[in-house]
Amino acid sequence: MILFVDMDEVMADTYTAHIEHYNDRFKESLTKEECMGFEVWQKVPAERKDTIWEHYYKDGFFRNLRPIQDSIEILGELNKKHSVYVASAAMQFPNSLLEKHQWLDEHFPFIHWRNRILCGDKKILRGDILIDDRSHNLENFQGRSMIFTSPHNIHTNHFERMNSWQEIAKELL
Amino acid sequence: MILFVDMDEVMADTYTAHIEHYNDRFKESLTKEECMGFEVWQKVPAERKDTIWEHYYKDGFFRNLRPIQDSIEILGELNKKHSVYVASAAMQFPNSLLEKHQWLDEHFPFIHWRNRILCGDKKILRGDILIDDRSHNLENFQGRSMIFTSPHNIHTNHFERMNSWQEIAKELL
Repeated sequence: MILFVDMDEVMADTYTAHIEHYNDRFKESLTKEECMGFEVWQKVPAERKDTIWEHYYKDGFFRNLRPIQDSIEILGELNKKHSVYVASAAMQFPNSLLEKHQWLDEHFPFIHWRNRILCGDKKILRGDILIDDRSHNLENFQGRSMIFTSPHNIHTNHFERMNSWQEIAKELL
Repeated sequence: MILFVDMDEVMADTYTAHIEHYNDRFKESLTKEECMGFEVWQKVPAERKDTIWEHYYKDGFFRNLRPIQDSIEILGELNKKHSVYVASAAMQFPNSLLEKHQWLDEHFPFIHWRNRILCGDKKILRGDILIDDRSHNLENFQGRSMIFTSPHNIHTNHFERMNSWQEIAKELL
């Protein structure tokens, strides 16, 4: 079985990083709980919205993300049983390309370079399952689409939902 | 129609660059004609083989490649008629990721970031046509496979062959 796994907010905790960078910069104490149902940029004052987007262009932003809980162990197991590919829409942020590759080398060295895809539009992927946090990626996929829970997508109802890597393990291992 | 186009030796003249870097370094005068039917590394003395491979890791190698004749004009036209995606097996050379993106920005700005794929294994591509110079990429593709002529593949017979971008234009425009 060919399994595609998105990086940001599925393997890498981009959401928490946005909150932390924001709090650092503005000496605020925004929490993930307060953001439930929204994007981080929707929960900050209007004049600071653009600063959230700027994080994506900061050197080291993608390189220093924390892996999502249990993702390393469970992807390690899935990788023994299925053809696991990482598929990240990284092209929007050219500075992220090398950082994402190095981040995978550090945290997911068992994902061979042949199984890494940095792309834009994910509708060109051919395989059995896509695990992603974004509806626009899941909608165009021809196989089985699984939405991985992130604060911004908790009200999305039209995909099979995985709340944690433990739930993915139960389903696919 | 979804059309995937490889970069090295289809859009970018990697083969000539290898010969030029080799000739520069060793004060030689190897020509493309002498290499017909072979990889560049097969036409240099055994003790220099590894130096060809090293080119891939030189800063600027991918950034400074010349576009293949007629590729810009004809891909510009194809891009108006079809969904054109660039698909390059770039993951093997992490230093190439940003250089390839910048090279596309310079020479093929009309290929939107959504339509750029830097991957490893190309068997995960879902679309209608793949134009590539490498048999191992073409063999695993589920659609129509077209081999783009490069000195190393002139004896490969089991794919529809395109000798130039003019031939591609005749077939697909």
